Amino acid sequence: MIAFKTIAYDDDRKRIIILDQTRLPEQETYTELETVEDVYNAIKKMQIRGAPLIGVVAAYGVVLAARSGDSRVVEDACDRLQSTRPTAVNLFWALKRMRHRLAYAMDIYAELLQEARTIESEDKAACQAIGTMGAGLVKNKSKIMVHCNAGALATSGIGTALGIIYVAKQQGKDFTVYSSETRPLLQGARLTTWELTKNEIETYTICDNMVATFMPQMDLVIVGADRITSNGDVANKIGTKGVAIIAQYYSVPFYVAAPTSTFDFSIDSGDQIPIEERDENEVRRFHDKCIVAPSAKIRNPAFDVTPATLVTGIVTEKCIVSPPYGPSIAQLR
Amino acid sequence: MIAFKTIAYDDDRKRIIILDQTRLPEQETYTELETVEDVYNAIKKMQIRGAPLIGVVAAYGVVLAARSGDSRVVEDACDRLQSTRPTAVNLFWALKRMRHRLAYAMDIYAELLQEARTIESEDKAACQAIGTMGAGLVKNKSKIMVHCNAGALATSGIGTALGIIYVAKQQGKDFTVYSSETRPLLQGARLTTWELTKNEIETYTICDNMVATFMPQMDLVIVGADRITSNGDVANKIGTKGVAIIAQYYSVPFYVAAPTSTFDFSIDSGDQIPIEERDENEVRRFHDKCIVAPSAKIRNPAFDVTPATLVTGIVTEKCIVSPPYGPSIAQLR
Repeated sequence: MIAFKTIAYDDDRKRIIILDQTRLPEQETYTELETVEDVYNAIKKMQIRGAPLIGVVAAYGVVLAARSGDSRVVEDACDRLQSTRPTAVNLFWALKRMRHRLAYAMDIYAELLQEARTIESEDKAACQAIGTMGAGLVKNKSKIMVHCNAGALATSGIGTALGIIYVAKQQGKDFTVYSSETRPLLQGARLTTWELTKNEIETYTICDNMVATFMPQMDLVIVGADRITSNGDVANKIGTKGVAIIAQYYSVPFYVAAPTSTFDFSIDSGDQIPIEERDENEVRRFHDKCIVAPSAKIRNPAFDVTPATLVTGIVTEKCIVSPPYGPSIAQLR
Repeated sequence: MIAFKTIAYDDDRKRIIILDQTRLPEQETYTELETVEDVYNAIKKMQIRGAPLIGVVAAYGVVLAARSGDSRVVEDACDRLQSTRPTAVNLFWALKRMRHRLAYAMDIYAELLQEARTIESEDKAACQAIGTMGAGLVKNKSKIMVHCNAGALATSGIGTALGIIYVAKQQGKDFTVYSSETRPLLQGARLTTWELTKNEIETYTICDNMVATFMPQMDLVIVGADRITSNGDVANKIGTKGVAIIAQYYSVPFYVAAPTSTFDFSIDSGDQIPIEERDENEVRRFHDKCIVAPSAKIRNPAFDVTPATLVTGIVTEKCIVSPPYGPSIAQLR
C-alpha cells in the first residue's frame, strides 16, 4: 500500500537510508546516513521527523555507533541523539531500550542491530493495529480533518492517524481528507497531501487559519501525538490545540492516534512537557525571502499541548482509550 | 505618527499614487495608477487592500474615469471596479456615493474629485475617532493579539484595529502586540509587523496555528472587518473566526474595530455574505516553489464570518457597539 520507504538499514554497507522529507513534495530523494553525527543532523533538520520514526532512526543511529564494538562510544551516541529534540517521547523510549540492551550485550553490534530491528518491526505492527482499531471511526462518505503529518512518513509503517485512513480505504470506504498546511514547515501541505494522493485518497489542503471555516463540514478529526501524559494531555505539532478547540466548538469528534510508546507515564499533566522552540528563521524567512519586518520579533514553538478535556479518544495499538483518561491510561502500562 | 502614505491623488498629473503592499516588508515602493484598469488590477492583485482603503482607492478610480467628462464612461468604471472583490462592503458603499454624486453633477470631474476627497477625509477622521473610542480597551503592560492587517495600511488614516493601538501608545501606554502571520498572503507577517515596528511598538509574529498557544497570555484581541451584518456577524480575513473561538475558550475579550461604512444593514446575518475564493496558487505556490503535492486539491476562501455571539464589542467612530447587536446596530443607521 505504501509506495515509499522512510527508513531502511543496509547491513552489508552498514548505513541508514532515509527518504529526505525536506525535499518533498518536489523530489523523492533518498540519502545515506553513515555516522551518528549524520543521524543527529537528519533528526535536527527534520529530514526525518514524526515521533515514531525519530525513535526508529535513533535506534539505528545507535547501531552505527555499535560498529566500533566499544560500549563507551555507544553510550556517547545515545547521549548525543537524546539531545536532538526534546518533546517527542518515542526518542527517549527507543534510546532507553537500546541502552538497556547494551548493558547485557555480548556481541554489541549484532544485538543492538537486533534491538533496532525489533523496534522497527514493533512500530510497523503498532501502526497496522492502530489502523485496524481506528478504522471503525471513519464513516463512508465522510470528511476527515488531519493536522501536520502522522502518516507513513512519520513512522516506519503505515502511519498512525493516516494508518487509520489507509485501513478505512482498504475496507472500501469513500471519504475526503482536509489537511491543514501546518506552518512553518508545512508538513501538512508538503507531506500529508503527497502520501495521501499517492494512495489515491481525495485530499484538500487548507491554510491553518481555515480550520474554523471547514470544521462544520467535518465528521471526524484525527491527529498524531508526540507525547501523552498520564492524565491524557497530548503534546503534538503546533496548531493541534487550536484544531481541538474549534472541533469542540462545532461538536466534531477529536481523536488522537499513537502507539503506547508515545505515553509518558512519568508525567502527570501536559504543563510538565518541555516544548521545543525552533529557530526563528523557520518563520521569518521563506525560501530565502524575508516575510516578516526585520524589526519584529518571532515566536516559534514547535508543539502545543491539547488538554485531555478536548480529546474524544486515543487510538492505540491495544485499544481505543476513552475518558476518564487517568484510570484508562494506567491500564496501558 | 504614520510615516507613509497608502494613497495620494495628484490632481496636476491626474494620477493615483499608491504604496504597493505586495512588495512589503522588503521594499517601500510607490506606484502610479493612470487608468481605471490600473486601479482594477491594483485592487484585484491586492497591491492595495483593506476594506476602508479599497473604498477610497475605488472612489479615486472613478475620478480617473471622470477625466473624460463622459458620464457613461464613469458608469462603466463604477461597474468595472465593483467587480474587483465581492466581500468588503466599503467598496460598494464608496461606489454608490460616487454614482449618486454623478447623477447630480454639473462639472463631473471636479465634483467627483470632491466626493472622493470627502470619502478619504471621512475615512481618516473615522480612523482617528475609532482610535480614541477604543484606546480605553488597551490596558498598560498588556498583551494584545491582532490578525491580518487592520492598520494604517488598510485605510487612508491611522487604521481601525491598529488605530486603537496607536492612540493607546500616544496616551503613554506600554504593551506588546502579537500578530498572526495570516496565510496565504501574510498580511500579518508582512504588513502589520512593518507598520507597528515603524511606530516602535514591540511586535511578535506568530504562525496562525500558534494562536491557541499564546491566547492564554492575552488581555485583548482586536481585529478589523470587511462587512458587518445587522445582527452583528462579522466577515473579516480568513482566520478571524478561529481566533474568536479560541479567545472565547480562554475568556479573552474579542473586539472588532470598523467604521460604520463597514455595516451592511441590508443583510440579516453572515451566511448571506458572499465569500471571495481566490486563486489556489496563492496557497499552492510560495515564491514560485510548489509547497503542495500537485495531485492535491486546494481551498482558498479569503474571508470567514465570525458569529456575533463571539464578539465582545464593535468599536466604530460613533460608539462602541455592545450586545444585543440587533437593536444597537439599528441605532447606527
